[in-house]
Amino acid sequence: MKNLLTIKRSLISVSDKSNITKLSRILVGKNIEIISTGNTYKILSKKSIEAKKIEKITNFKEILNGRVKTLHPSIFGGILADFNNEKHIKEINALKIQGIQLVIVNLYPFVETIKSTKSITKCIENIDIGGPSLIRAAAKNFASTCVVVDIKDYELIIDELNKYNGISLKLRKMLALKAFKKTMNYDLEIFKWFESNIVEKNEKDFFLFGNKINNLRYGENPHQSASIYSYNLSNNKSFYKQLNGKSLSFNNLNDIKATLSLLSEFNDPAAVIVKHAIPCGVAEGKNALFVWKKSLSADKLSAFGGVVAFNRTVDKNLAKELNKIFLEVVAAISFTSEALKILKEKPNLRVIEIKRLKDFKVKKPKTVVTMPDIFLVQESDMYSIKKKDLKVVSKIKPTKKQIEDLVFANKVVKHVRSNAIVIAKNKVTLGIGSGNTSRVDSVNFALLKANRSNEKGNTISLKGAVMASDAFFPFPDSILIASKSGVKSIIQPGGSIKDKTVIKEVDEKKLSMVFTNKRSFTH
Amino acid sequence: MKNLLTIKRSLISVSDKSNITKLSRILVGKNIEIISTGNTYKILSKKSIEAKKIEKITNFKEILNGRVKTLHPSIFGGILADFNNEKHIKEINALKIQGIQLVIVNLYPFVETIKSTKSITKCIENIDIGGPSLIRAAAKNFASTCVVVDIKDYELIIDELNKYNGISLKLRKMLALKAFKKTMNYDLEIFKWFESNIVEKNEKDFFLFGNKINNLRYGENPHQSASIYSYNLSNNKSFYKQLNGKSLSFNNLNDIKATLSLLSEFNDPAAVIVKHAIPCGVAEGKNALFVWKKSLSADKLSAFGGVVAFNRTVDKNLAKELNKIFLEVVAAISFTSEALKILKEKPNLRVIEIKRLKDFKVKKPKTVVTMPDIFLVQESDMYSIKKKDLKVVSKIKPTKKQIEDLVFANKVVKHVRSNAIVIAKNKVTLGIGSGNTSRVDSVNFALLKANRSNEKGNTISLKGAVMASDAFFPFPDSILIASKSGVKSIIQPGGSIKDKTVIKEVDEKKLSMVFTNKRSFTH
Repeated sequence: MKNLLTIKRSLISVSDKSNITKLSRILVGKNIEIISTGNTYKILSKKSIEAKKIEKITNFKEILNGRVKTLHPSIFGGILADFNNEKHIKEINALKIQGIQLVIVNLYPFVETIKSTKSITKCIENIDIGGPSLIRAAAKNFASTCVVVDIKDYELIIDELNKYNGISLKLRKMLALKAFKKTMNYDLEIFKWFESNIVEKNEKDFFLFGNKINNLRYGENPHQSASIYSYNLSNNKSFYKQLNGKSLSFNNLNDIKATLSLLSEFNDPAAVIVKHAIPCGVAEGKNALFVWKKSLSADKLSAFGGVVAFNRTVDKNLAKELNKIFLEVVAAISFTSEALKILKEKPNLRVIEIKRLKDFKVKKPKTVVTMPDIFLVQESDMYSIKKKDLKVVSKIKPTKKQIEDLVFANKVVKHVRSNAIVIAKNKVTLGIGSGNTSRVDSVNFALLKANRSNEKGNTISLKGAVMASDAFFPFPDSILIASKSGVKSIIQPGGSIKDKTVIKEVDEKKLSMVFTNKRSFTH
Repeated sequence: MKNLLTIKRSLISVSDKSNITKLSRILVGKNIEIISTGNTYKILSKKSIEAKKIEKITNFKEILNGRVKTLHPSIFGGILADFNNEKHIKEINALKIQGIQLVIVNLYPFVETIKSTKSITKCIENIDIGGPSLIRAAAKNFASTCVVVDIKDYELIIDELNKYNGISLKLRKMLALKAFKKTMNYDLEIFKWFESNIVEKNEKDFFLFGNKINNLRYGENPHQSASIYSYNLSNNKSFYKQLNGKSLSFNNLNDIKATLSLLSEFNDPAAVIVKHAIPCGVAEGKNALFVWKKSLSADKLSAFGGVVAFNRTVDKNLAKELNKIFLEVVAAISFTSEALKILKEKPNLRVIEIKRLKDFKVKKPKTVVTMPDIFLVQESDMYSIKKKDLKVVSKIKPTKKQIEDLVFANKVVKHVRSNAIVIAKNKVTLGIGSGNTSRVDSVNFALLKANRSNEKGNTISLKGAVMASDAFFPFPDSILIASKSGVKSIIQPGGSIKDKTVIKEVDEKKLSMVFTNKRSFTH
């Protein structure tokens, strides 16, 4: 049933020697002969573990500083012979080649080497040639050979040898799969290093490798399957830790990305509420409780069922406030134990501890847009506005307070879908116009929302508010509309052929305006 | 300067024999000794090209049906010896191993084999072991060896041998890089096949390989770099052909993706106008000219600077109309020569021939959402509504004409950013509410736009229009608002706990409503 492979002989050639003596002792205890190479042999000998030097098999000494040691037919014949094939058996018997049923190999530490040295020679010397050949040969011949490339799998081998006195076909297949993943990934790392260090190629290829962490229940919609992956093939670290609630959905994670991307731009205490990956309420201010109340008041209607994140600790009082409305996700850099206890009163509420908020600002990976035949890759938008980047273009200069609001609004507008308009005051969003196909519509709708939130008892009046735009105004119409609603200062990239007309309108309406010279489309 | 490598000996072992006799003749003519394996040797002998059988070097016959033939120290010593290293030279001289300076190898056709047979044995036999070992060894030792893995590169080798009587370091490096890409990609293909055919793993890993086609001027914004890639490592085919205009930008391509995704859902003549990856005017009707006029009238303001695509031929009359407004991109499945001539009057206008529109419907690749540490991958939304999928939930049944409009509006709403609302009539969009953080806002804004387009002389009255929503209505408020504006029939997925209340409101207002049971969020 298990299609067991009896192990008589094992080839061990490992660069990382962890656990190798323990494993070898067990193998020897099971009367398995060990063949090994240079340093592995030395270590086993030192521990008095019986092993045969590979030269005894090949009658050929290691040459070229170890560049050639295992690449020999007596070894590869033993690994590649199909023991279900009469012809193969005859051939290797005639040549007195003995079958090798277990191949334990880990490779020269190429990745570790390129990280630790700038010496090209050292890096090249750490490109393993024999190792991948042995691994690939054993993996190909999983019918008659078992390959082990990961120290973590020693236990699996020992378990099966103990239980069955052999290795099952199922395990051999799984280990063969892992072996090809290893050699593929090894050559990818070499390729990337060559591209940057040997060839100095500008036109670099793109590779995205994903180690599946788990399947999600579904994607954006229930009829789309989706999964979550780690970039790192050997380490599933993640920027968050879930402390409570139902599992995160695809849309939760997509919303969290949008939320933290914006949140990471603030230094003072800030709250960001997101719905459908678009901010609906944002505030920066004196403490977490204050900014929560302000961001919620910006658009209470939208906040229902939203994702909220804080760049500060959530304490008891804030947790009590948060529990008053329905939220999908609450994220923060930390929670007091009292706060966590309160939030856990809602068993479904997803509570997320953000581990590395800064990564969303400085280590945001490239974005990928797939289509049939081709795909696009771009750097994420890492630009974050600073006061010194502002260029006043109006006759009237914005006040110090207005500048604070302009910078705040600009940070928000960058994360709103184009055409994006943000109306803000006192570092609180009042109205956000998002995803409109004309800019003046975005202005109109942002103001409609701002006026509504104002009517509904928001303590912040629209009078004296600022307006941010993610791209230039192609016409002065938006300025007129904004001015009528009480907007007093405007921030935008500039760069339109109509800039002069727009500035004229600003001056006529006695507003101030600054240019950033940085467009921030988000689609 | 060129750091030339003199070639005395070449190892040739190729599975694809194209051009090999031509190349070999040239090598022999330059007094280069050829060593070759089984079938390559046979072909060269037949053409009377002087070559040495590999067995002559190894003193070892090919065994295991060719599984072991080149894996021998006399071969690998010759490839891996560093001829700038005294010790290496001494060692191989002592063993009478001769240096091999040129390694020409292409691999067993694994990908072709898995496509052409279901036989596991045959596929496994086509996993090349010796080939990748030779290639990797030669690539590692590019200082003393030149590796050739692609038939297309034979010319480069011949050129340099003719010009310099040797191979430059620059070319050796470039070919070494190519070699590691080859072995990496070869093992990826094996890995993927193992995953599906040997291990039958559900938790498949994800790999996205991109062959760079070219850099784009920039990404979504000028301060973001971006590039375009082909999935296929050896073939840069693309779903479009550019016939006129400036190069496509990142945002153009992103818009084209959005445009064609929606366009691919229509069978009758249709036009889709997109701005910022969001449809702003869509029409389906009797011919291309008709749908252009209708889609433009839907939202003239937004169409300015947009991308438009047709699932029919653009002829002279349509081209004349298109030239009347400023567009960034005109795409169509074909253009008459007269039409093309007219469009070319605008040298900047990007004119795109769509080669495989259907691929956007049936072969849309998975989408990728990247974040720090992790990324998400999901199937694209391939569901396309059919009349039979509609479930009438209101007392009043929609008329036949309304059903046509409901299906039309549903196709559009699927491609609008959530929360998405589409108001349509006579298979023309009248108002599109997109990217709002509350559904009722999307209804309000879609109706505002529909009423405005109506006022501005659109021939289609809002009375009797239909409304589509990408997700359920959480409250009946949207129904009331829509009804007041003249909407008579509604399409939505259903599934809210408030469905009953919503249906009650629909019945009270004497509207009809159908459920699709398919949500279509797009973020």
